[in-house]
Amino acid sequence: MFESAELGRKLNKKTFQQREPEVREALLDAQLRLKESSISALIVIAGAEGSGKGDTVNLLLDWFDSRGIETHALGEPSEEEIERPPYFRYWRRLPPAGSLAIFFGSWYTGAIAQHSLGKIDEAQFEDHLRRIVEFERTLADNGVLLIKIWLHITKSQQKRRFKRLSRDRETAWRVTKRDWEYHRTYDRFVLSASRAIRRTDRAHASWHVIEAQDARYRNLKVAETVLASIETHLEDATQPPAANGNHGLPAPAPVNIISTLDLSLAVDPADYRRELTARQLAVGRLSRDLLKQRRSAVVVFEGMDAAGKGGCIRRLTQSIDARTYRVIPISAPTDEESAHPYLWRFWRQLPRWGHITIYDRSWYGRVLVERIEGLIPSAAWRRAYAEINAFEEQLTSSGVLVVKFWLATSKDEQLTRFKDREARGYKRYKITPEDWRNREKWDGYIAAACDMIERTSTEIAPWTLVEANDKYHARLKVLRTVEARLQRALATR
Amino acid sequence: MFESAELGRKLNKKTFQQREPEVREALLDAQLRLKESSISALIVIAGAEGSGKGDTVNLLLDWFDSRGIETHALGEPSEEEIERPPYFRYWRRLPPAGSLAIFFGSWYTGAIAQHSLGKIDEAQFEDHLRRIVEFERTLADNGVLLIKIWLHITKSQQKRRFKRLSRDRETAWRVTKRDWEYHRTYDRFVLSASRAIRRTDRAHASWHVIEAQDARYRNLKVAETVLASIETHLEDATQPPAANGNHGLPAPAPVNIISTLDLSLAVDPADYRRELTARQLAVGRLSRDLLKQRRSAVVVFEGMDAAGKGGCIRRLTQSIDARTYRVIPISAPTDEESAHPYLWRFWRQLPRWGHITIYDRSWYGRVLVERIEGLIPSAAWRRAYAEINAFEEQLTSSGVLVVKFWLATSKDEQLTRFKDREARGYKRYKITPEDWRNREKWDGYIAAACDMIERTSTEIAPWTLVEANDKYHARLKVLRTVEARLQRALATR
Repeated sequence: MFESAELGRKLNKKTFQQREPEVREALLDAQLRLKESSISALIVIAGAEGSGKGDTVNLLLDWFDSRGIETHALGEPSEEEIERPPYFRYWRRLPPAGSLAIFFGSWYTGAIAQHSLGKIDEAQFEDHLRRIVEFERTLADNGVLLIKIWLHITKSQQKRRFKRLSRDRETAWRVTKRDWEYHRTYDRFVLSASRAIRRTDRAHASWHVIEAQDARYRNLKVAETVLASIETHLEDATQPPAANGNHGLPAPAPVNIISTLDLSLAVDPADYRRELTARQLAVGRLSRDLLKQRRSAVVVFEGMDAAGKGGCIRRLTQSIDARTYRVIPISAPTDEESAHPYLWRFWRQLPRWGHITIYDRSWYGRVLVERIEGLIPSAAWRRAYAEINAFEEQLTSSGVLVVKFWLATSKDEQLTRFKDREARGYKRYKITPEDWRNREKWDGYIAAACDMIERTSTEIAPWTLVEANDKYHARLKVLRTVEARLQRALATR
Repeated sequence: MFESAELGRKLNKKTFQQREPEVREALLDAQLRLKESSISALIVIAGAEGSGKGDTVNLLLDWFDSRGIETHALGEPSEEEIERPPYFRYWRRLPPAGSLAIFFGSWYTGAIAQHSLGKIDEAQFEDHLRRIVEFERTLADNGVLLIKIWLHITKSQQKRRFKRLSRDRETAWRVTKRDWEYHRTYDRFVLSASRAIRRTDRAHASWHVIEAQDARYRNLKVAETVLASIETHLEDATQPPAANGNHGLPAPAPVNIISTLDLSLAVDPADYRRELTARQLAVGRLSRDLLKQRRSAVVVFEGMDAAGKGGCIRRLTQSIDARTYRVIPISAPTDEESAHPYLWRFWRQLPRWGHITIYDRSWYGRVLVERIEGLIPSAAWRRAYAEINAFEEQLTSSGVLVVKFWLATSKDEQLTRFKDREARGYKRYKITPEDWRNREKWDGYIAAACDMIERTSTEIAPWTLVEANDKYHARLKVLRTVEARLQRALATR
């Protein structure tokens, strides 16, 4: 969930100052248009202690016109509030149509803190999350735009920040005993938070996880996120709702989770062959244990054309008893498949106990090719993240291990491989005019993949990004990951 | 939840035979139009043992064209299915676009049975229901029309049916030991079922509770319900979604939960005065105990104009310490209220511990006046039942007692009272041209009230219907109900 927010992104002062006037003006303009609409916007600012929530809120208050925006810093409920149902305090503070409210401390705060400190159990946590989903749906259905922002810092960043603040007399008061207590339970906090985010990330109330270590990057990113949410929502509200979703291609962030991969990683051919055998033996052994434990696995491969999915899949299947795996290549759906909800074709291929289904492309097509090619309305792919997370949660909670790979190659490497395929007769069938067309939309696909990874890399079914310019490195990383995930899964249930 | 299905409705053979050809033809026509659409329809037939599910399914299969409809009688999961996630068996059986499927035994069966037999606890039951809601939303979002039918019989009807079947050699095999076991736990079954229905009743997947004792009534009603659902859905799919919801007034069923009230019930004035004092003392005493138990109450009054709400409210408030109650008259929302989601104005008036808020008309305006007058899109009032049930569940689960009254008067009695009000100077302000206009839509209001009662009379917040042609009877019934509900609430927490 948070990998995309640990890339070390920074913004220098000059760039920030260049961007600032433009964003501020656009924010004021969006606020004005909101004012004339029947919509209100509710901004939730959440995140770990020390992630700079206060600074961010101050910046938003500074950049927006203060008439028409209210801030609610919610701490403990008042006596007035304790005597009413828990959501009373949020309902009473809802912004009226045309205005904005910032919730700094929200319906998430208590649930996540209590769960991470072990004060409520799984069932109670789930009950909180169910209430949240109901509440947010009611708001969204009734004209409230929800913008939910999670500011993320790592454990060591949190520690550094607390120490820095403590050293200075002026700021020492800001770090309390409780903060250090939170710091000690940081890992559990992150786990609870990522579950809450996964469960409550809906098209009508989606989360934006933002890297918060660098103040300038964080502040500008928050402002831009708020701006984009308001603009898109106002557009959607004025456009006919049946309109198709192909509003041009999305653009990837200049620094993103795919761009930060080190594609120069490579393995020596001799080392490769040696390790390959060992890994394949291990995977084969582990795969045979699945049946005893009444478990099964699905392995998903995604990536740009010619990223080497087929090669990785072959090295994987070589290690497994042929009676226990199936490879399902996913291309355009059949007539029968089109006549059902899109997840149907994947449900029907789920493995029995002891079996492994390998999907060569998968349900993620919904948020990749179908999104980029405008094959479905935008509401459909926006909704799909939540549908996919719910699907994978059903798999894992009934004992199906879910392993997901994104094979990343550079655009140059793709070109080399395309040309190579065209040159070799027996590989020519693998390259089609469509591949060349897709290549033109490279940036859009990368942006869509980044969104996908951010929204669906969950604690129960994380994405593994594979540097795939070197095939040997890619294949070994895939096998190592499958081995490790199988090992952990078989040990814990 | 089930009161509306215990009215003893029957259909004689002749009427059934008259209606049959018409309904059958319309069903075939609807099936044909469905076939040409991109929609599929999934009919869930559920209910207690002995409610005639099998007969109903047979009838539907008979009346529909058998090409394009499949039946799935789901018992225990197969070995194939046990090895996959629980919803695998439903996904694999989804009807393709243009066709129908009947699920006879569904994702509800296990959850309700296990909960009522105490085999799963509250948290597990809630988890099942959450899954169901997610599943149905995914289906609905992806082009599946869900028609969920609950066939209801009372405990004594079930007993009679089992006995009748057992006596006959030809049918004795149909009543198993397990059926009698279910019969013994009937009350718990009904409680689990009504909770499941309340939690999963959504605009896009709504429940239809049908009185099932009389086979002809049941069968025709099921067929008509299926027909109406398909027709409405096909219309919605072809109409612009932003269209306003005022598709003419709904018509009430000839026999409905309001029409079956005995409006001749009356109380002798001397008896009235005697009992009034006693009841008021009791209610006053109980209301003072609310604070000690950190509880509060809301009392809702709905009914046609001049039904006597004011008089009932006065008799109620006379009994309570003036510092601890507030009467909130609900009319058209203020500007500020209109600028918020519609439940906001009710949230802000919620009582503190020890207090009672009395709503003279309430949030139910959403599904009464706002529906009938076409003030909101039809999606908004359809969705409101679920929003209201979730709201009331939040109230009750945080200790707020919810008491809801529908005051029922006859149309003649209303006329008498209108004329009386016009005749007396000091009451003339109480009658407006709008009252006369509303009177013209009497049937529409009754139909909307029946829908409202059926969908929102839950085990946690039931409606009390008050025969109100006689004011004395009405006032006493209100006080008696408040007394009994307070007593029970204070005893159980």
